[in-house]
Amino acid sequence: MKIAILGTGVVGHTVGSKLAQLGHEVRMGSRSSKNEKALKFVKDNEKHRASAGTFEDAAQFCELAFNCTKGSSSLAAMRLCGEEPLQGKILIDLANPLDEKGNIFTPRDDSLGEQIQRELPSTKVVKTLNTVNCSVMIDAAKVPGDHDLFICGNEQAAKDKVSGWLREWFGWKSLIDLGDITGARASESYLALWIRLWNVTKSPNFNVKIVRGS
Amino acid sequence: MKIAILGTGVVGHTVGSKLAQLGHEVRMGSRSSKNEKALKFVKDNEKHRASAGTFEDAAQFCELAFNCTKGSSSLAAMRLCGEEPLQGKILIDLANPLDEKGNIFTPRDDSLGEQIQRELPSTKVVKTLNTVNCSVMIDAAKVPGDHDLFICGNEQAAKDKVSGWLREWFGWKSLIDLGDITGARASESYLALWIRLWNVTKSPNFNVKIVRGS
Repeated sequence: MKIAILGTGVVGHTVGSKLAQLGHEVRMGSRSSKNEKALKFVKDNEKHRASAGTFEDAAQFCELAFNCTKGSSSLAAMRLCGEEPLQGKILIDLANPLDEKGNIFTPRDDSLGEQIQRELPSTKVVKTLNTVNCSVMIDAAKVPGDHDLFICGNEQAAKDKVSGWLREWFGWKSLIDLGDITGARASESYLALWIRLWNVTKSPNFNVKIVRGS
Repeated sequence: MKIAILGTGVVGHTVGSKLAQLGHEVRMGSRSSKNEKALKFVKDNEKHRASAGTFEDAAQFCELAFNCTKGSSSLAAMRLCGEEPLQGKILIDLANPLDEKGNIFTPRDDSLGEQIQRELPSTKVVKTLNTVNCSVMIDAAKVPGDHDLFICGNEQAAKDKVSGWLREWFGWKSLIDLGDITGARASESYLALWIRLWNVTKSPNFNVKIVRGS
């Protein structure tokens, strides 16, 4: 598939490299087509089909996009992609609305997922992967045994497709559907606990399992 | 022990009845000593040592208090208890800052646990149990297998005591210490996910397990 990785940070590199290794055509998008981190990504993946371009260029190129920008830059990045290039396409949003202190910046009755969906009304925004570290995102088995990933979005068919890709590409076995894109309020709010647990466990490689009672 | 249950709702009844059955002297506190729900609690537990009184009366009476009021009423209730009657005592805060729509009403950089600790600076506020339904609070085995409860508070000795009671009285085996009372931001924020999961699982009898990777 032709996949856009929007954002040049560690998450974009990790997810983009994995997808390139799997044989996909991956274009990393950023503000400038000469972005140094994006060019390094291309070099790191020179054995695979990797390229770099502007946000708009990557958005136009792709069949599927991943929002890997920092939450505080995500809306600006989506605006630079433009609505038309992403029209009708699935955008997997794995960013979190964290400010520089690690605090969630969205109000309790909103979420970054919803903000992005409002910014791109004709794009199928699917929120998922945002509740685990990027090394776990691309390899669910980094955390042993059973554990759960959350997914939400307004279109069932888009969520079904994304669920299949998460299983096939990254090994995710158990996905919990939180409903429409407002479910992002739930999975993004969990980040407050995730960050605190990271401080306690001293490793970002953990996840949650929902244990059901009678 | 002499235990105050502050609040007359389902959570107060459930926790108070369990403690009375275990042989503790339980006094349910509310705005009025003639509160009908509190008098029903006394009647329901007439075989045990249960009584009812005002918030201040219950606070004065007790060696240990549970805040079982609705989050939106908690600060007013703590004010009615007064600082002196709860001085030096442990207050287990299991409330959540939910408004009538089920939305969290505290800002992201504050929590109900912290607000209560600021209201009662000479009380040892320990936040715990707020991440599970009250039927699970008093019987961890309602959810099978391994799962985790979070605890936080400013005083280690108080958290150690509470951990022991949770184990002995309610069967909690695995507690994760989130640090000082600001950890309440994390466990209270998780409620947004808890409520969404409740909608999905259709049962409130579930909990999370933190699964650690390498």
